[in-house]
Amino acid sequence: MSTVLAAVIPAPGLPAEVREYPEPELEQDSALLDVELSEVCGTDVHLRAGRLAGVPYPLIPGHVTAGRLEKIRGALRDVHGRALREGDRVTFLDVHRTCNACWYCLVAKASTRCPSRKVYGITYGADDGLAGGWAEKLYLKPGTRVIPLDDATDARAFMAGGCALPTAIHAVERAGIVLGDVVLVLGTGPVGLSAIALARMSGALRVLAIGAPALRVEAARAMGADDVLDLERATPEERHAWVLERTEGRGADVTIEAAGAPEAAVQAMRFTRDAGRVVIVGQYTDHGDVPFNPHADLNRKHLDVRGSWGSDYSHFHRAVRIMADTERSRPWTRLALESYGLAAANQALDDVAAGKVIKALIDPGAEAP
Amino acid sequence: MSTVLAAVIPAPGLPAEVREYPEPELEQDSALLDVELSEVCGTDVHLRAGRLAGVPYPLIPGHVTAGRLEKIRGALRDVHGRALREGDRVTFLDVHRTCNACWYCLVAKASTRCPSRKVYGITYGADDGLAGGWAEKLYLKPGTRVIPLDDATDARAFMAGGCALPTAIHAVERAGIVLGDVVLVLGTGPVGLSAIALARMSGALRVLAIGAPALRVEAARAMGADDVLDLERATPEERHAWVLERTEGRGADVTIEAAGAPEAAVQAMRFTRDAGRVVIVGQYTDHGDVPFNPHADLNRKHLDVRGSWGSDYSHFHRAVRIMADTERSRPWTRLALESYGLAAANQALDDVAAGKVIKALIDPGAEAP
Amino acid sequence: MSTVLAAVIPAPGLPAEVREYPEPELEQDSALLDVELSEVCGTDVHLRAGRLAGVPYPLIPGHVTAGRLEKIRGALRDVHGRALREGDRVTFLDVHRTCNACWYCLVAKASTRCPSRKVYGITYGADDGLAGGWAEKLYLKPGTRVIPLDDATDARAFMAGGCALPTAIHAVERAGIVLGDVVLVLGTGPVGLSAIALARMSGALRVLAIGAPALRVEAARAMGADDVLDLERATPEERHAWVLERTEGRGADVTIEAAGAPEAAVQAMRFTRDAGRVVIVGQYTDHGDVPFNPHADLNRKHLDVRGSWGSDYSHFHRAVRIMADTERSRPWTRLALESYGLAAANQALDDVAAGKVIKALIDPGAEAP
Amino acid sequence: MSTVLAAVIPAPGLPAEVREYPEPELEQDSALLDVELSEVCGTDVHLRAGRLAGVPYPLIPGHVTAGRLEKIRGALRDVHGRALREGDRVTFLDVHRTCNACWYCLVAKASTRCPSRKVYGITYGADDGLAGGWAEKLYLKPGTRVIPLDDATDARAFMAGGCALPTAIHAVERAGIVLGDVVLVLGTGPVGLSAIALARMSGALRVLAIGAPALRVEAARAMGADDVLDLERATPEERHAWVLERTEGRGADVTIEAAGAPEAAVQAMRFTRDAGRVVIVGQYTDHGDVPFNPHADLNRKHLDVRGSWGSDYSHFHRAVRIMADTERSRPWTRLALESYGLAAANQALDDVAAGKVIKALIDPGAEAP
Repeated sequence: MSTVLAAVIPAPGLPAEVREYPEPELEQDSALLDVELSEVCGTDVHLRAGRLAGVPYPLIPGHVTAGRLEKIRGALRDVHGRALREGDRVTFLDVHRTCNACWYCLVAKASTRCPSRKVYGITYGADDGLAGGWAEKLYLKPGTRVIPLDDATDARAFMAGGCALPTAIHAVERAGIVLGDVVLVLGTGPVGLSAIALARMSGALRVLAIGAPALRVEAARAMGADDVLDLERATPEERHAWVLERTEGRGADVTIEAAGAPEAAVQAMRFTRDAGRVVIVGQYTDHGDVPFNPHADLNRKHLDVRGSWGSDYSHFHRAVRIMADTERSRPWTRLALESYGLAAANQALDDVAAGKVIKALIDPGAEAP
Repeated sequence: MSTVLAAVIPAPGLPAEVREYPEPELEQDSALLDVELSEVCGTDVHLRAGRLAGVPYPLIPGHVTAGRLEKIRGALRDVHGRALREGDRVTFLDVHRTCNACWYCLVAKASTRCPSRKVYGITYGADDGLAGGWAEKLYLKPGTRVIPLDDATDARAFMAGGCALPTAIHAVERAGIVLGDVVLVLGTGPVGLSAIALARMSGALRVLAIGAPALRVEAARAMGADDVLDLERATPEERHAWVLERTEGRGADVTIEAAGAPEAAVQAMRFTRDAGRVVIVGQYTDHGDVPFNPHADLNRKHLDVRGSWGSDYSHFHRAVRIMADTERSRPWTRLALESYGLAAANQALDDVAAGKVIKALIDPGAEAP
Repeated sequence: MSTVLAAVIPAPGLPAEVREYPEPELEQDSALLDVELSEVCGTDVHLRAGRLAGVPYPLIPGHVTAGRLEKIRGALRDVHGRALREGDRVTFLDVHRTCNACWYCLVAKASTRCPSRKVYGITYGADDGLAGGWAEKLYLKPGTRVIPLDDATDARAFMAGGCALPTAIHAVERAGIVLGDVVLVLGTGPVGLSAIALARMSGALRVLAIGAPALRVEAARAMGADDVLDLERATPEERHAWVLERTEGRGADVTIEAAGAPEAAVQAMRFTRDAGRVVIVGQYTDHGDVPFNPHADLNRKHLDVRGSWGSDYSHFHRAVRIMADTERSRPWTRLALESYGLAAANQALDDVAAGKVIKALIDPGAEAP
Repeated sequence: MSTVLAAVIPAPGLPAEVREYPEPELEQDSALLDVELSEVCGTDVHLRAGRLAGVPYPLIPGHVTAGRLEKIRGALRDVHGRALREGDRVTFLDVHRTCNACWYCLVAKASTRCPSRKVYGITYGADDGLAGGWAEKLYLKPGTRVIPLDDATDARAFMAGGCALPTAIHAVERAGIVLGDVVLVLGTGPVGLSAIALARMSGALRVLAIGAPALRVEAARAMGADDVLDLERATPEERHAWVLERTEGRGADVTIEAAGAPEAAVQAMRFTRDAGRVVIVGQYTDHGDVPFNPHADLNRKHLDVRGSWGSDYSHFHRAVRIMADTERSRPWTRLALESYGLAAANQALDDVAAGKVIKALIDPGAEAP
């Protein structure tokens, strides 16, 4: 077959539609991926609404994606230097072209702030090639970090983690959890849910979570939270009291904010004990200002507050390794998934926006309903 | 002589007055200090105004203090286990009774958040004994961490650093300065001035400072700032531009906020480069809320923001060691000092409040004017 | 009853014998503990053999100990400031008199190197009071850090961890394990066994262990090791190859040496990947020199090698918290324990020395056989 | 001119000789450098002697090199993205082809252990092009990290630092020096000398050094060492005593081993205080095994020992920035330099091997004697 179907957002504010593209010619050391599953994440909802700057529409969304290598031209190697072969099941780091040449890459060693980085399905548009996962095939450009998914890996569990998983691994790395800590996770969306399981895996003795709606509260428990508060049933003051009751009156040792509302960033500081650590990972888009008290919330508390932006290959690599482990990946197998065909992409976006599903996936091979 | 003169703040909002106290009886392993110099710091202005909670008036202010051991009962040892002798010149950590028994001391290892800690001249009142430096004699309670000031030490330079010096050492330790960093210091009061010299000493290649008034701008240069902006002559936007011009358009690698105004805490975040570090040490008292943007100021920036509260013995020990070094202590010898007798304590407080002096000292042996 | 039976090692090289002591008078803020279980650890074998310097014989061994508070004089508080009551089940940090006044405590913040620290059952002898757990009662001196064991805590599992548990927590803290690491544990004695479970709990994806004899190899699996090599069946070269086969040819990300033989310290370096981390915690006593190659084993490898000495209250506190958690403490419930009465203390030491038991406990209330 | 003279080591063990090469054709985004100064370092002595494995002879030595861009094809950009122009004075990171694609680059983030890295003048031979600095011209391959040397920079001071400077920056970064530390530097070759100045710059209050011969002892003082011991006049025991006398009997807080002899690695551990830090950076080549005592030297001391291998762009960038600062670069201007023409390369190697000069430079434009 020489054409490829893809779901495309033509312009900011317009619904996705299925379009047909010619199968791409492969450059040296590139490949064509037969897409099995791609994800629908909160960012995709923002992308359809046109809320992100710098997005080159028309856009084929779908950043974290799994599939089989259909065609390789030249060589594709994993980080161990092993050549990948046609037929291999793989995924790939959605971040491309981190330059390894700029001040942020080389001096600050903060590659997630590299100005050259491009993200499949977000900052690569349809004019850049088949660079999004909501398509039958995806073009793996030269230099893409491809990583095999072995047969032991549950691809659906891996996709349940999706882009939230490496993001949460980065956040948990920044949190510096110590054996025996009480960790509070604010927000029970995909990043918060993964953070719950990862915090436990990293030595937290108790994980508390605050989130909504009921569906996600339940999912938080399934991911291993010891105690979950439904945020819709508690005022901010009640939430604070709920945390203090569970932490000897001190607040959490570590709080991971994965909620998104600006107030959550301030609550994260307030709900944490003196000399504790706070990671802010939920403020992916700008929802405006919020007041805080630098004396009480930061200085007198002797607090560490750490922003955590994106993820790099190391986090993605570890995400794949965790998902290749039957025991460690178990929490993610408990998450309810909903699959949609390409033609149902708008339905998927609507369901994610409405919080009706824990995780929506695009399955380009699915029959149209 | 069996009576001791001290300057006392009788109650919140009242001026200091000189009172006479009986010379104390010494408990086992305590001592009487013949005070040479004590300091007047910004906190003392707040204490007279009654702006701090939990202060047991009447109060003899004066926390960091230098003098000679007049009488010792039992043994007083330094951290090397060496016995101190009557006649030795010493200073002491103004923080007492850090308990080494509570969760903060023993598990969090954050002794500056120990609820039992008491501070000479602030949370010890006159009813707790001669526990403040604005007096002819000071009572060194058992367990006070006393440290000798050798003859090579310039006591006036040490007092020029005063309580701000260990506070700034703690802040600079939290800043994690790397060789070659550009460090921005916001605020040119005592903590900011010490932070400038200490940042240079810790590997900063360039130190930028923003402060006021002109007197302190000049002092900032004397402490080693490479470039100083008078904050009264620049809007916040102009200050931001001034920093960007000096940092390849990125912002400082490290910013130390020692200004006190709540907005300074937010500017500290904004004036720092992505993936940089911010230390908040100037928000010693509560001046209310301030709005910030968790997305742009923290999360997307991948920033580390660290509150720094008080100081512990390790910082004080290093402060004394630095001041015993002729070369390293030089910046502090350049600071203009003004000495006042006990009877002139209110004048000293007025001058500090008005920003007329860089550093005011109380010299209990000074003749009344 | 006004006399107390205790097992005592009278002098270096002599067997333990049961002696009778008068019940001690309590100082202010001290207590008498009715001992339920105390431990027999490898150190005790050395103590009977007289291999440690600075031990004040006659000695009542038994450092980590659990029991009930029989009598309290004054007040005993936990780190939360809560008063303990007679009848409470407790344990206590065996390290006493860490001074919080010396350079190591206050400046280096390395309290496990404080020269004043005393350890119950090791550096407190029988002449210092009933300061060892191999006795019907133990005297809790003022200032001892006592911590309640709640009813949910399985005291036998806690004692199965024994002194090895906080030691291993300290070692794992020093190891800086990152989510997804492969951790190698050398040695399957008590510290190694606890390190296996704790490494998993701290984010290790795979834990490899090398030890002996068969009994302990089996226990290593029970503690959660993914793969265990019987060290008696493999030459050092074969062990190295075994590790490389399981780590993409690179070596472990982190190695925790808990073996004791000097060569194990060098193997720890060799079996670890470049830029990895090694913790040396097994070299508790001096077994002589061993050759290593500073170029190949350390410098070219860009390795971090970290000695880990003893443990402090924070590690002990977390040990108790982990053991109060049903799920987290499970691995320790799987360890085979052997209890001995006071009169059987030498048998216990013989069995430990011969590696016949995983963990031996002294139960002072046990009937003589 | 279309030919280029270069000093070449034809094969292991043979003397360098001057050969003529054709001027290279430039690939896209490469450049030709008109060499002003290149360095002779200890490695070059080993290269002539044939002591390093994996070196592709014939070899044009000279890794750290400064010169002017004579010709550029395409674009050459610095880390700020600014295009360099013909005529600019520059230097470049001698490490090339760090892959940013392997496990060490991407997961371990230890790029100095990347198996693909190539070093100009060491692992690039003459058959790889004009890839060494002992030549009139050097070929800057695409992807080489080029950095401008502004007019304020003293090129001779920069070359006095040479490759030792970024190596020492890396070592000092690994050392984690805290304000007020006593730092001991073992070895007063180029890395040791730079480490002395950098340790002072990073907050060391006192820097002690042990080295030889007299020429270098004097240079150590010029670099800022407070106290220097001539190693030829003291036994290892006397050296140990000398350190203890200067550190309250404890040993240095931090020791940087830059000596090379295997015993120095062990002395570094012994001369450091408990819970201190040791950096091993001098063991660049294999000089065999040495015995140490894992109990006394590592475990009981609770020591951190850190190998430090090579340097990456961040260290080189900071090296250039330090050298562009008049005050900070001053110590290096005090080092005696000796320049040699291409024809005198063997003399330069002989003088370096014999320790007759502090630093030898190759000046390809120098008249033959």
